[in-house]
Amino acid sequence: MSDFSRYIDAHLERFHDELNEFLSIPSISTDAERAGDLRRCADWLAAHLRSAGVPEVEVIPTAGHPIVLGERLVDPNAPTLLVYGHYDVQPSEPEDMWTTPPFEPAVRDGRLYARGSADDKGQVHMHVKALETRLASNADTPLNLKFIIEGEEEVGSAHLGAFVKEHAGRLACDAVVISDSSMFSPDLPCITTGLRGIVYTEINVRGPAHDLHSGSYGGAVVNPANALAAILAGLRDEHGRATIPGYYDPVREITEAEREDLARLPMDDEAFCADVGASELGGEEGFSTLERLWYRPTLDVNGLLSGFTGVGSKTVLPGTAMAKVSMRIVPDQDPLEVVEAFEARVRELTPPGVTVEIERFHDGAPWVADPGHPVFEAARAALTAGFGTAPAMIREGGSIPIVPMFEETLDAPVLLVGFALPGCNAHAPDEWLHLDVYRRGIAALAALYGEIGDRIESRGG
Amino acid sequence: MSDFSRYIDAHLERFHDELNEFLSIPSISTDAERAGDLRRCADWLAAHLRSAGVPEVEVIPTAGHPIVLGERLVDPNAPTLLVYGHYDVQPSEPEDMWTTPPFEPAVRDGRLYARGSADDKGQVHMHVKALETRLASNADTPLNLKFIIEGEEEVGSAHLGAFVKEHAGRLACDAVVISDSSMFSPDLPCITTGLRGIVYTEINVRGPAHDLHSGSYGGAVVNPANALAAILAGLRDEHGRATIPGYYDPVREITEAEREDLARLPMDDEAFCADVGASELGGEEGFSTLERLWYRPTLDVNGLLSGFTGVGSKTVLPGTAMAKVSMRIVPDQDPLEVVEAFEARVRELTPPGVTVEIERFHDGAPWVADPGHPVFEAARAALTAGFGTAPAMIREGGSIPIVPMFEETLDAPVLLVGFALPGCNAHAPDEWLHLDVYRRGIAALAALYGEIGDRIESRGG
Repeated sequence: MSDFSRYIDAHLERFHDELNEFLSIPSISTDAERAGDLRRCADWLAAHLRSAGVPEVEVIPTAGHPIVLGERLVDPNAPTLLVYGHYDVQPSEPEDMWTTPPFEPAVRDGRLYARGSADDKGQVHMHVKALETRLASNADTPLNLKFIIEGEEEVGSAHLGAFVKEHAGRLACDAVVISDSSMFSPDLPCITTGLRGIVYTEINVRGPAHDLHSGSYGGAVVNPANALAAILAGLRDEHGRATIPGYYDPVREITEAEREDLARLPMDDEAFCADVGASELGGEEGFSTLERLWYRPTLDVNGLLSGFTGVGSKTVLPGTAMAKVSMRIVPDQDPLEVVEAFEARVRELTPPGVTVEIERFHDGAPWVADPGHPVFEAARAALTAGFGTAPAMIREGGSIPIVPMFEETLDAPVLLVGFALPGCNAHAPDEWLHLDVYRRGIAALAALYGEIGDRIESRGG
Repeated sequence: MSDFSRYIDAHLERFHDELNEFLSIPSISTDAERAGDLRRCADWLAAHLRSAGVPEVEVIPTAGHPIVLGERLVDPNAPTLLVYGHYDVQPSEPEDMWTTPPFEPAVRDGRLYARGSADDKGQVHMHVKALETRLASNADTPLNLKFIIEGEEEVGSAHLGAFVKEHAGRLACDAVVISDSSMFSPDLPCITTGLRGIVYTEINVRGPAHDLHSGSYGGAVVNPANALAAILAGLRDEHGRATIPGYYDPVREITEAEREDLARLPMDDEAFCADVGASELGGEEGFSTLERLWYRPTLDVNGLLSGFTGVGSKTVLPGTAMAKVSMRIVPDQDPLEVVEAFEARVRELTPPGVTVEIERFHDGAPWVADPGHPVFEAARAALTAGFGTAPAMIREGGSIPIVPMFEETLDAPVLLVGFALPGCNAHAPDEWLHLDVYRRGIAALAALYGEIGDRIESRGG
């Protein structure tokens, strides 16, 4: 047993008590009435960073909720690691669906149930305790540590980008580590090396100036809901592929090495399907489930609205029909090129007799790590030390816009090492954190700080 | 000038005053708080039927609003005509869109503006005044007249069918006349000889057990909204035709005579298109606008709902997607056969990975008159006398379930002779009645009673 594990086990009860305190503060960022709780949560975290060994900690106001900034600068020639996380949480509704109250942490079957336990207060706390553990163990590799823990991740990190730009000098670092992602299973630590990007649009089809009687006008006036269905269906072919010209051209082929990595993962399609409650899985032909989720782009309808949607029947020929349509994109697709080709295809599919307007909402580029960078060797070594198993390289089908933001603004690689688990109910009732993963993850992170200190060259030195 | 017209012109000011009184009563049947107004309106009508010369008038309670029943039986050997209409009206919201208040009748440019002026109190009043006019003019053909004027037409005539069944003996007649339809233009009286039927359904496509994150699951789980779009698009081909096997087999070919009738109508596609506010008209290829509206079946999406429909974006892969879909059907399509073939086609179009449920709402058979029946000769002669022009035979794209109900329950032909006009805002603000049509229509109806007395054999005699 390593020194780290010995220290963690000796102090685990206190770690749990502290985490419970942290999780008891209802830091729901979307709720304006909780602003005081957010502030209280930031102050709690600042105090605990200080007592863990971060001498300089500030709670910095933003136009939204405050950002906690910590600095432990030990050696100008040592490399610098920036830890990002967030202390705000999702709303807890519907509260009556929780087995125990969302802000009264409770342990059942080795899991800690509370809002924020997995996303992301539990994982932030693991970093705080990793630093305490490392310092208590007299580990000697010098590393400068910086912490930036925000309070608005669940509401879109509205003020983070500007803050990082404004404080880019102070946040300068050689790598960024973010623990806000998942492992594949409790015994398999993971490094997330790729994220899909996104292009999100709204299509509005307009026909007659207002709703008409479907008897008096049906058959003579082009129905925007019929037209919308034809457009949406025309955007996909019978093989589950988008019909946008050129859409797949920039998509990187999956390499043999990547296919071998995927094959090693304990993926169980049947369990996955049962977990989502679908009758069977589907999608683009010719690819496995994980390939479709991580390596292939999508085209999904996210919302539909037209005409009469109440109970029963109303004989209306709708004046308009709306669809939200988004595409998850992958390297090397470009969001702007994708949205322009998409719009051209939608116009091509629009029948005479209706007009179409397309609104562009947010977009984000796909992201893929450079797995040859030494930060990944460091993470592999640390996770192997903490969990007794070499980590798997995985990807995530979703988009995390702050990842490319950090990489671009600070010109430093981002390492995604997360400790949530599949089915942890991150945005749902009964969110939970696996307590043995919490314990082993702290050890892994304490090791990570050392491995990065050993393996990374300081650019500032 | 006929005797009828002379009498009408001599008393027109009083007729207008009475109609204004009738229209001033806010008989909105859907509004439970208006029950007293409905009763007051029924009593007003009963009194005016009596003073017009109907000796037996009753206001009969139902579980909803009362039915006004009048009988003027003059000769057991004479034919009997049953006049149907309704004294209830649509709601007046949005009231601030009315140029003058909905229940304060106002004349502008030869039109009488008020809720119910066209639909249907104005047309009911024309029958009352037609009887008064006929009796005052000492017209001598004997005819038994019965009136059934209900107060629930705008809420689906919930109690009418049972009432007609229960009182079928008392309502026995040789023909039914309904004035609740439209003319093609102010100078062209019309007889409506066909109605489309309807089959109305709701399709629910279900995929995952609940909404999923479109990043974490998109591409691997079949999206019910994508699937619904494919189903709906698959139900129609690129020529605007339904793809339901056998759908068009029972549809009657349009005859040469019908095409000639249609060609004579002053139909202006451009004006029609401008009126509905569409960029251009469309529909089934190979048919004119009126053919598509009156003689051809449709398949229209009446409503769509799935996933996120608010402002902005939400990255949801919806658990369900819903569409309301209805078909307007024509002779000799059968509602039950149509809905069964529709359901089979929807199931055939449903991709693996989702399930589909189809709910059937109301349906109604199409209706077509037998234009060889003498009641149509009578109507042609009467409308020619009233308007100085032979009437056009038109159809209506909508469904009027009470028409087949009367025909079946009373075994008598139904004559649809209406005096509303296109654009009369029947269910919208600023509803109006053309006052010169009101005047001429009263003369035509007075003539109609005589023509029917002359031409129809009494079955009861």
